[in-house]
Amino acid sequence: MLDHIDSPNDLRQLAPSDLLPLADELRHFIINTLATHPGHLASSLGTVELTLALHYVFNTPDDKLIWDVGHQSYAHKIITGRRDRFDTIRTYGGLSGFPRPSESPYDAFGTGHSSTSISAALGMATASKLQGNTTRQHIAIIGDGALTGGEAFEALNAAGDSKANILVVLNDNGISIDKAVGGLDRYLTRLTASTHYNRLKDEVWARLSGVRPGTRTHNRSRSLIQRLTFTAKTALLGGSNLFESLGIRYFGPIDGHDIAQMVEMLTKLRSLPGPKLLHVITIKGKGLDSAERNPVVYHAPGRYDAITGRQISHQADGQPPRYQDVFGQTIVELAKANNRIVGITPAMPTGCSLNIMMAEMPDRAFDVGIAEPHAVTFAAGLAAQGMVPFCNIYSSFAQRAFDQVIHDVALQQLPVVLCLDRAGIVGDDGPTHHGVFDIAALRPVPNLTIAAPMNEHELRNMMFTAQLPDAGPWVIRYPRGCGVLPDWHNEMSPLAIGRGRQLADGTDVAILSIGHSGNDALEAAKRLMSELQISAAVFDMRFVKPLDEQLLDTIAAANYRAIVTVEDGVKAGGFGSSVLEYFESHHHDRLPRFAILGVGDAFVPHGPVARLKHDCGYDADDIVSTITKLLNAR
Amino acid sequence: MLDHIDSPNDLRQLAPSDLLPLADELRHFIINTLATHPGHLASSLGTVELTLALHYVFNTPDDKLIWDVGHQSYAHKIITGRRDRFDTIRTYGGLSGFPRPSESPYDAFGTGHSSTSISAALGMATASKLQGNTTRQHIAIIGDGALTGGEAFEALNAAGDSKANILVVLNDNGISIDKAVGGLDRYLTRLTASTHYNRLKDEVWARLSGVRPGTRTHNRSRSLIQRLTFTAKTALLGGSNLFESLGIRYFGPIDGHDIAQMVEMLTKLRSLPGPKLLHVITIKGKGLDSAERNPVVYHAPGRYDAITGRQISHQADGQPPRYQDVFGQTIVELAKANNRIVGITPAMPTGCSLNIMMAEMPDRAFDVGIAEPHAVTFAAGLAAQGMVPFCNIYSSFAQRAFDQVIHDVALQQLPVVLCLDRAGIVGDDGPTHHGVFDIAALRPVPNLTIAAPMNEHELRNMMFTAQLPDAGPWVIRYPRGCGVLPDWHNEMSPLAIGRGRQLADGTDVAILSIGHSGNDALEAAKRLMSELQISAAVFDMRFVKPLDEQLLDTIAAANYRAIVTVEDGVKAGGFGSSVLEYFESHHHDRLPRFAILGVGDAFVPHGPVARLKHDCGYDADDIVSTITKLLNAR
Repeated sequence: MLDHIDSPNDLRQLAPSDLLPLADELRHFIINTLATHPGHLASSLGTVELTLALHYVFNTPDDKLIWDVGHQSYAHKIITGRRDRFDTIRTYGGLSGFPRPSESPYDAFGTGHSSTSISAALGMATASKLQGNTTRQHIAIIGDGALTGGEAFEALNAAGDSKANILVVLNDNGISIDKAVGGLDRYLTRLTASTHYNRLKDEVWARLSGVRPGTRTHNRSRSLIQRLTFTAKTALLGGSNLFESLGIRYFGPIDGHDIAQMVEMLTKLRSLPGPKLLHVITIKGKGLDSAERNPVVYHAPGRYDAITGRQISHQADGQPPRYQDVFGQTIVELAKANNRIVGITPAMPTGCSLNIMMAEMPDRAFDVGIAEPHAVTFAAGLAAQGMVPFCNIYSSFAQRAFDQVIHDVALQQLPVVLCLDRAGIVGDDGPTHHGVFDIAALRPVPNLTIAAPMNEHELRNMMFTAQLPDAGPWVIRYPRGCGVLPDWHNEMSPLAIGRGRQLADGTDVAILSIGHSGNDALEAAKRLMSELQISAAVFDMRFVKPLDEQLLDTIAAANYRAIVTVEDGVKAGGFGSSVLEYFESHHHDRLPRFAILGVGDAFVPHGPVARLKHDCGYDADDIVSTITKLLNAR
Repeated sequence: MLDHIDSPNDLRQLAPSDLLPLADELRHFIINTLATHPGHLASSLGTVELTLALHYVFNTPDDKLIWDVGHQSYAHKIITGRRDRFDTIRTYGGLSGFPRPSESPYDAFGTGHSSTSISAALGMATASKLQGNTTRQHIAIIGDGALTGGEAFEALNAAGDSKANILVVLNDNGISIDKAVGGLDRYLTRLTASTHYNRLKDEVWARLSGVRPGTRTHNRSRSLIQRLTFTAKTALLGGSNLFESLGIRYFGPIDGHDIAQMVEMLTKLRSLPGPKLLHVITIKGKGLDSAERNPVVYHAPGRYDAITGRQISHQADGQPPRYQDVFGQTIVELAKANNRIVGITPAMPTGCSLNIMMAEMPDRAFDVGIAEPHAVTFAAGLAAQGMVPFCNIYSSFAQRAFDQVIHDVALQQLPVVLCLDRAGIVGDDGPTHHGVFDIAALRPVPNLTIAAPMNEHELRNMMFTAQLPDAGPWVIRYPRGCGVLPDWHNEMSPLAIGRGRQLADGTDVAILSIGHSGNDALEAAKRLMSELQISAAVFDMRFVKPLDEQLLDTIAAANYRAIVTVEDGVKAGGFGSSVLEYFESHHHDRLPRFAILGVGDAFVPHGPVARLKHDCGYDADDIVSTITKLLNAR
C-alpha cells in the first residue's frame, strides 16, 4: 500500500480502516531502512500513527504542520513524496534528518533545535488571520521534553492570550532523548490518568508481567502505569489544568497509536477555532521491541539488525575514545577530589556522557531538562555559593544561553566551567547542529577564559585547570567524535592560562591552530616538508582567550614568510581574526602573508565531517594548498 | 527612624508596629531623592513594604535575596547600608541601578535582565544543600511580567522537581514596564480572586469612585477589581493551580502593602522546606498618586516634583528626535503602504515606541511579553507566511534570541527585520544593558544583512529598504537617545544593499565608521584639518554585512597613511575587525597603519554615554588622538 502513497492526497483516498495496516507497513519501512541507513529511529517510530492521522485529517500543505525538533518527522517525509529518497537520509546531498522548507512544501518550518514550533505556528496562524484566511490550520507537534524549553512556555503564554487558530499536539512519551525531567513531566504523568485509558494500561500491565523488577523496562512500565492509575479525584482533567490556566483549551489524553480515535478527535478539533492542545500518549520506539525497551539508546542507534533490533557495533579495542567520554570520565575523577564540583546538562546526559557522573554521584549531577538558559544561570547560582559547576551544552544549543553566559556568568566572574561539546562541524545533523559560532560570539565577552583541546590529554588538563581556585569563568570547546589518543588517561596537570605551545619547528611558515585542528596542522606540516620541502612551524595556541601574546611576539620576530590560522568554526571574528588583530596592532611592519582557515560565510550542509571540513577549506589538504598558494603569490 | 537603619540588623531590633511608619518614611525618602536624581521610581515604590518584611523576617545576608531584573531593589539598597550614597544612584562612580554583588554582600546575585532569579536561587539552594546547610533561605522576588520569560518557567519546572529550599515571591502588579500581557497574566488575575481580599477590593472601589470612566486610572482600577471579584467557584485557589501543577506549593495571594500580614506569612514559610511560591499583590508606584495612575510613565520618569509628581520636562522644540521615535513613526508610515508589515516587541512598546503602531494599528502590532526567543521565532513564523515582521528588541536583550536569529531566521532566509534599539553604550543602566556585543555576534551569521544608520534619514531609508520584496533577513541597529536631524522626516528612498558612502574627502587618512559614530568621525575630520592640518576622508560604511568591498578597494587604492575604524560596540570581531580581515586578505601589500576604535575587553560601567565612550576611546577626541599617534609613529 505504501508504494502508492506519493503524497498525502493519495493517503486521503484511503478508507479509515486502511490506515492501521498502512501504519504497520510504514513502520517496517522505517525500521528496515534505518537498519542500514542510520538515523533517528525511536522518535519516528513513536509518531507513525500520529503522522498518518494528521495528514489524513488536515489539508497539507495548505494546512501547516510544524514538527518540533524534527527528528520525529521521518514518517512525514516518507508520505510527502520522499519515499524513494528516504535511504539518503542524513547523507551528503541526501535528505536532511530534519524538516527543511527548501526540501518540500510539506515542511512548513525548519526545525532542529527544540521548543520553537508553537512560536512558529502562532506566527503562521497570526499571518493567516491578517490575510483573512480563517480556515487554514496551524499545528505544532511538540514532545513533552521540548515543552520544558522556556520558549515553548513563552509561546503558550502568548497563544493563550490570542484567538489564533492553532493546535498544539503534545506528543507525550516521557522521554526527552534521555528521560524527561522536571515538575512539568510529573504533572503530565498525573494528567494522563484517565478512565478512557484502561486499554493502554492493560497493555502495559501485560508487558510488565514477566519483566524482572529493577530493570529499566520494569521501571519504565511502572512509570507508565503510575500515569494511568492515578485516581480521578486527583486527576486534573477538568477545566483547570496548566494549559487551561494559560487560556488554551485542553483535550485528551488519547492513545497516540489508535489512529481511528486520533482521526476522530482531530476532525472535531479542526472546526474548533482558537488555541487548543491535544495531549497524545505515544511510546517512543513503538514497534521495535529493543527500541521500546531502551528508547534512549535507540534514539539514534546507528546500524542494527532489522529483525532483532540488535545494534551492529563497529567499535574496536585500542581506538581513541570519544571526547564526550573523556569529559564524562574526567569530571567524575575531578569531582572525587574536589567536592565543590557539580555537573549540569540540559537534557543531554547520554549525549555528553554526564550520565557517568549521574550514576556515580547522583546528588552532584543535574539533568535540568531542555532548558539551556536555566542551566547556565543555575550554574551561576551554584558558583555564587562556592561550587564549581561544569555545565555541559552542545555548542549550537549553547547559542540559547548566550545572554546568560554574558549577564550571569562573565559579568559576575563566577567560576562556571562551560563545556561546549559538539563544537565545530558535527556532520550528519547538519546546519542546525554545527557548533561553529561559539568562538566568534564568546571571544568579545570580558572575563572569559576560552580554551580548546587538541586531544584527550589536553581536554583533561584544561578541565583540571578550570576547577582550580580563582580560575574564574571558563569555556572549553571540543568536537563531536573521537580524539586521537588510545592511551587517553594521563595524569592531569595544570596548564598556564593563556599560554600556547609549539608542536613543530619550522622556518618558512607558521601554522597556528586551536583545538583538534592542531592534528590537521601537524599532518599538513609533515606533508609540506616531505612533498614540497617547505618547513612549517606548528603552534597549538590552546587558548582563544587570553591569547598568548608572548608566543605571538616570538612568532612575529621569527619573520615567517606566511602565517596560517586554522579553526573548526567561523572565520569572521573567530580565532584567526583575533590573531590577525593582534599582529596588525603590535607587529604591523612584520605582518607576513596571512590566511585564516575555517568556516566561511554560508551555512554548512549535512554530511560526513571530513567531507564538510574539506568543502569549507580547513583540513590538512587545504592547509597545504593554502600555504603553497601564499608562498607562490607574486 | 530611617536615619538609624544602617543594616537589616537595625531593622530587626524594631517592633513589628514600627515597620509601617518606617515604610512611609522610606517611601518618601525614595520619592524625594529620585525627584532630583532620576531612577526607576514606580517599581521600587511598589516593593517598599515587601522589602522591609523580607529583611525583617530573613537573616540577610546569610539568607539570600535575589531581585529579578533588580530595578525594584532601591528600598533594599537603602536599608542595607547604602542610604548615604543613595543620591549617587545610576551616576558615574555611584551606586548601580541594579543589584551588584561587588557593591554589597546583601546583593546576592547581580541582575538587570529579567527572569533569571529563580534559576539563580535554585542554584544557591542546591549549593547550600550540598554543603549541608539546611537552614539557609533562598528567595527570588520576581514580577508577574518577568514570570512570562521562558527561563523563569524552566526554573519553576526544575524547582518543582527538586526538594530545594527555595521561596519564590511573585510580586504581582499587572505591569511589565508596560502592561503585562499573555495567558499567564490573565490567569494571575483569576487566581487573585479570594475572600481574604475584600479589604484591598474595598480600597480599590473607593479609589474608583469619582474617577471618570474610560480613563487609564478607571481601567486599571476596574482590572484590579476584576481580579478580586472573581468568584470562588472559578478561582483556582485549591491545590491545583499552575504552580502546584509544577510541584511548587502555592500561597496567597496576600496584600503586598500589608507588612504585618507579610511578616506573619513569611515567618511561617521560613520553616517550610522545599520549593514554594508566595503570591503578593502590589501596586506599582504606590504612594505617589501620579505614579499609581500611570505606572508606565513613572517606571523611570526622569526628574519630577516630589509633591505633585509632575514630571519636569527639558524637552525643547526643534531638537532632533529620539531614534526610537523615528522607528515608531516610520513603521506606521511603512505599514500603511505595505500591508505585509507587522510590528513585534517583547514587552517594550513604550521603550521602543512601537506603542505608536499599537495605538494606530492594534491588529498588526504585537507585545508578546518578556519573551525574546518567542518574539523572534514568532516573527519567523509570520515571515514564513508572507508577512514582513519588524521585531524590535533592545540589543542587550536580543542576546536572549541569538539562537533563534540563527536557527529560525537566518538559516531559513526569512524576511524578518530585527531592529536592535539601545545598540551601543546606553549610559546609566550600565553593563547589563550596554548593547555592545551584537555586531561581533551576528556578523558571522550567514544570510543576514546588518546595517546601522548614522542619522534619522538613514534609519528611515534602511527600514524602507528592508521591507522591499526579497530583502531577506535584516538587522538594523541604532543607539539609545537622540539623532542629529531636527528635520528628520525625509521622503524615504531605497539604499543599495552593502554599499557605503563617502562623507568627506581627504588625502592623509581614512576614517571608516558604522552607524551613529559617523557623526563623531565627521567632527574628528574637521578638527584634524583645522587644528592639525591633517586631511581625513570619512566613509560611512552603512552596512556591517555585506561589507562594501568595492568601496574598500577604492580606499586601498588611495594609499592613505592610516585607516581608523569606529564603532559603538566591541572591537574584538566587530566591524573594524571585518574591515581588517578584508584589507589583509585583499590588499596585504597596501595595508597602512590601522586602528580599530570601539569597546575594549572589559565590561563598561554605568554613567553618561559621552563619558563612557571617551573612557572606551572612540569619541571624536579619541579619533583625533589616535590618528595623531598613528601618523607620528616612528
